Parts: sequence; structure tokens; C-alpha cells
Amino acid sequence: MKPYVIGVDLGGTNTVFGIVDKDGNIIAENSIKTQKYSTADGFVKAGVECLMPIIEQVGGLDKVQGMGIGAPNGNYYKGTIEYAPNLCWGHEGVVPLAQMFSDALGGLGVRLTNDANAAAMGEMRYGAARGMQNFIMLTLGTGVGSGIVINGQLVYGTDGFAGELGHVTMVRGETGRPCGCGRKGCLEAYCSATGVARTAREILLGTNRPSVMREKELDKLEALDVNIAANGGDELAKEIYDKTGEMLGQACADFAAFASPEAFIFFGGLCHAGEMLMKPIRESYDKNVLPIFRGKAKFLVSDLMDKNAAVLGASALGWEA
Amino acid sequence: MKPYVIGVDLGGTNTVFGIVDKDGNIIAENSIKTQKYSTADGFVKAGVECLMPIIEQVGGLDKVQGMGIGAPNGNYYKGTIEYAPNLCWGHEGVVPLAQMFSDALGGLGVRLTNDANAAAMGEMRYGAARGMQNFIMLTLGTGVGSGIVINGQLVYGTDGFAGELGHVTMVRGETGRPCGCGRKGCLEAYCSATGVARTAREILLGTNRPSVMREKELDKLEALDVNIAANGGDELAKEIYDKTGEMLGQACADFAAFASPEAFIFFGGLCHAGEMLMKPIRESYDKNVLPIFRGKAKFLVSDLMDKNAAVLGASALGWEA
Repeated sequence: MKPYVIGVDLGGTNTVFGIVDKDGNIIAENSIKTQKYSTADGFVKAGVECLMPIIEQVGGLDKVQGMGIGAPNGNYYKGTIEYAPNLCWGHEGVVPLAQMFSDALGGLGVRLTNDANAAAMGEMRYGAARGMQNFIMLTLGTGVGSGIVINGQLVYGTDGFAGELGHVTMVRGETGRPCGCGRKGCLEAYCSATGVARTAREILLGTNRPSVMREKELDKLEALDVNIAANGGDELAKEIYDKTGEMLGQACADFAAFASPEAFIFFGGLCHAGEMLMKPIRESYDKNVLPIFRGKAKFLVSDLMDKNAAVLGASALGWEA
Repeated sequence: MKPYVIGVDLGGTNTVFGIVDKDGNIIAENSIKTQKYSTADGFVKAGVECLMPIIEQVGGLDKVQGMGIGAPNGNYYKGTIEYAPNLCWGHEGVVPLAQMFSDALGGLGVRLTNDANAAAMGEMRYGAARGMQNFIMLTLGTGVGSGIVINGQLVYGTDGFAGELGHVTMVRGETGRPCGCGRKGCLEAYCSATGVARTAREILLGTNRPSVMREKELDKLEALDVNIAANGGDELAKEIYDKTGEMLGQACADFAAFASPEAFIFFGGLCHAGEMLMKPIRESYDKNVLPIFRGKAKFLVSDLMDKNAAVLGASALGWEA
């Protein structure tokens, strides 16, 4: 086994390349603007140019075991990115990105998965899930993503797209909030950063209750404003976390009926709310879960929140390559 | 590997013991009344007495590789039955049934799991799921049970109790039907045989619509009556299957977001409705599932419906023992 792997966090705005050692230290890092490239070919060429100096820094490609990429709409089985709406070259349809990078890097083994699965891999190898065989990672960012580990393995399903827990239906019927996926009532529509901001706007519009959040223009209100308000003691902002946590607890209760995980691990911007969010999650879970599971699962915030978790997570895939 | 295994279907009323060969043929079978025994000790003693003649029939214990038991509240990891409400000796708490049978059978390897997991094992080895790595088995009987296979392995979770899909919450809040588990709105409260009978009673009570089902006393109405009525063309009975199928399709759509299985396999009494139930399930699934999964999963009725599936399924565990 060679001493390093490459981890790639392919995001809508930036793509970060990192060289990672066996202990999960990021030895070198470089990045490009994802949006600058209108074709996948152009993106790969720029990516390799960006990588070369940091590869040289650790002694060349001979020292690199493999490369792992975490990307939106990534398909683990095929190494493809499929119809990614947030990438400039998403319109190219099914892009064989793993093969393209492999070809450009002298046949280096390259694995690719979606970003939330990469986060779960990182958590399992370097973070809060070390030693766990069964856990569920929920990433609470712009959307709600998930990476599920069962019997020590990532769950990819029959087509490579399993683990879309942001799109279980929490509110059925026409009253459910529209979701970016085209359906209604998804967990993501309520419990993402965007969902939390929307909850705030709904309550501010629907009531006269006082809140420091009213100082901001309603349509510019973001999850961060809710966080600042709640930290300052704003009751309404705290209630928004209560509501959000209540729904997350209900969802986790259903996930427990499926997989009975040892832990639920939360990651992403919303986790900065800390106990203001985690406490209502735990309380709602214990209230809603099947009695046989009550009090068993741990509710943890990612160990990797302050590190470059996405790069680390993707790099963990590089050892498989 | 020895030529035979023992499969045990431990039900609330009867316990069936079968000797099964490698091709899934039940060579010999015998049974006892579960309810006749007030202690687990007495039950095991009677079970062994019942087994001995059929073991002798295939040449004695030397020809038997192991024994598998499918039982309510069975814990795969521990080989125990835990607080089973429907067994006379359930009040004994955690009963180490696998160990007790092993001790009584000269140290024979004995594995135990819950009944729906046993059904999934049987389906994977002998039935509709042969060759599948990812599928979800839903048993629609008195309750709704499930066995989940991911990456070719049964999902037991961290405590051995994973796969309780009958207890995901389909109707949230106070309007949800009470479920036997003590909670409200569970899938089982609507889509089990008991749930279907209850749906029938609710509609018959709440409307004046004509139906042959009115010929029966309301509180004696069973799922079988709905089946007979629907087969005879009763519109109201057919609508009950539509409603039941719609909810099952919604639930499967959520399960797909979790595991993206190759197939959903249905088993149990309600499946006798055939296409009257399967068609609304498929339609509701395609309407409710995340677009990326649409049209991918198969919806199948168990291949083992007419065989002694529970014994076969449990016996499949015997090869692991």
C-alpha cells in the first residue's frame, strides 16, 4: 500500500483537491473554481493541472494509492456523475468522471461517490463513527443528504443512488412544502438550512410575535440569522430549532425501524446550533421511536466539522481504489 | 457440509419443525401446539420429542448441519426470544432459545431470527429473490413484518432488531390509528390484514354505500371477507385495496430513498388479492418515489406462498449454523 491518497471535494462552487496520509492528515491542498469550466473535459484538465504540484510535493504519483471523489449526483458503481443540476457541465448527462481522471493520471485507481456518502466514509475512518458497523450520517446543509452504513458497508443500493434520506416524505398530501426534487413534503424542505429559513419566514409572516429576526428583510433571511438570533436568546428562533429538531427526531425514529443504527451523526451548517437542535432531536426521537429502540441510539455531531471533512471523506475512498 | 438442516417456524399457535435438503425440499415435517406449553423449558422438551422421529427418518443427527428458527421477537445476535407478547412463556423475558435447543440436541448449531427475516432468507435462497443483493420483503399478515437485505446480507442493525418497517409512521399526529405497539399511525395499523378489516369497517360505518360486506356483522368482518367481496366485483372492497395499496406504495417510496432495492417482495395473506393490491402499490410508488428511482424497482409476490415458506426460510439459517 502506498503512503498517500487523493481526496476530492467536488462542490458547485469550488473543487478542493487534497493529499491525505494514512492517519487522515491533509498534507497538501489546492483548489479550482468548479463553475469556471463549461465542459467536463475542461474541468478534468484544470483539475489535473491543479493536482500536479501537490502530487510532486509528496514525491510523485508513485506515492499515491488512489483517488476518491465526493460529488453531487455521484454514482459509486459506475464512477459517473449523472445529470447534476448544480454543475455547469451537468447538461452533458452521464459523465464518466472517475475514468476521465484515471486516464489523465496514468491509470490511477479512482473511485467516486456522492458527497454525503463520502462524508460517512470519512466519519467511519477518521471521525465519530470509528469502529461502528451501523450508523446513519445526516448532512444538514443547503439540502439534507445522507450516508448509511450497515454491516460496516456503505449502502449504495441496486443502482448506486441509495441513501437519499432528505427525500423521505414527512408531510403527506398537498399541504407538504414543495421540495427542489419536484415533490412535496420531503424532510429536506423543512430540515435543511433553506428549510429552516423558510420556517422562520413563515412564522414571522404568520404572527406578530417579536423577534430580532424582524430587523432583516424577510426574503433575505437565512439559517445563519436564525442561529444568531437563537444564540442571543430570541424565543422565536429557539422555537424554530425545536420544530426542526422535532421533525428530525420523527424521521430518525423511522430510520431506526429500518436499520437500528448504533448512532445518528449530524454534519453541516445547521449543527452549529448545537444543543439547541440536538436536544429536541433526541427528545422527539425517544417520543416517536418504537419502544424496543428507545434510548439505544447515540446522537452525535460530526468529529470532522472543523476539518476539511469532505476531502477527508472522499480520500477514504481512495484506499479502496 | 452435511445433507440436511432443520427449519423451525415458531408461531403463536403452532410450531412446525421441518427437515430440509440443499435444494429446499422439505423431506419430513412434524408440529406441536405452541400454546400448550407454559414454560420455555417445557416447550423445548416437547419440541425435541417432536423432532426426534423426523431426524431419525433422515439418518440421525449426524446428517444434520444445523437448525434455524424463525420466531416473533427473535434476536439474531443473541439467539434469544425477547418479551414476545404472543407466546405463553413470553413473560419469562429474554429466553435463550437457540442455546436451549442446542443443549438438548447434543450441541447442534442453532440460529434464530425473527419470522420476517426468516422469510427473507428463504426468499433469497429458494424464492423470488434468488441472485438479488438488495431487496425488501414485506409480510402482510396479522401484522406487517419486514426483512431487509442489503449487499447480500440481512439487516439486523446494532441490536438485532432492525427491519421493523411495519412501524414506520404513515399518519402523524393524533389522527393516526392506534397500533398494537402502543404508538399511532404505523404502517401496520393500516396495511396488515387487521388494518384492512378496520378500513372496511370504517367505510361501511361512515357511508351508506352498498356492499356485500354489509351481509356480515361489522365486528366480525375480516380481511378475507374483503377479499371475497372484491373478487366478486364489489366496488367498495376494491377501493379498500386501492387505499391499502396507495399507502404501501408511499411507504415503499420512502424505503427506496433509504435502500434503493432491486425488488420489493410481498408475502402473506393479503397477497391473495393479487393485482387488485399490487397494481395500486406500483402506481402509488411511481407517483410518490424520488424521480431518480422511478420505474426501477420490481414489485413481486413471494415465490414461496404455497410452500411452507416459514420453515424453508428458517432452515436457510441452519446452513449458517
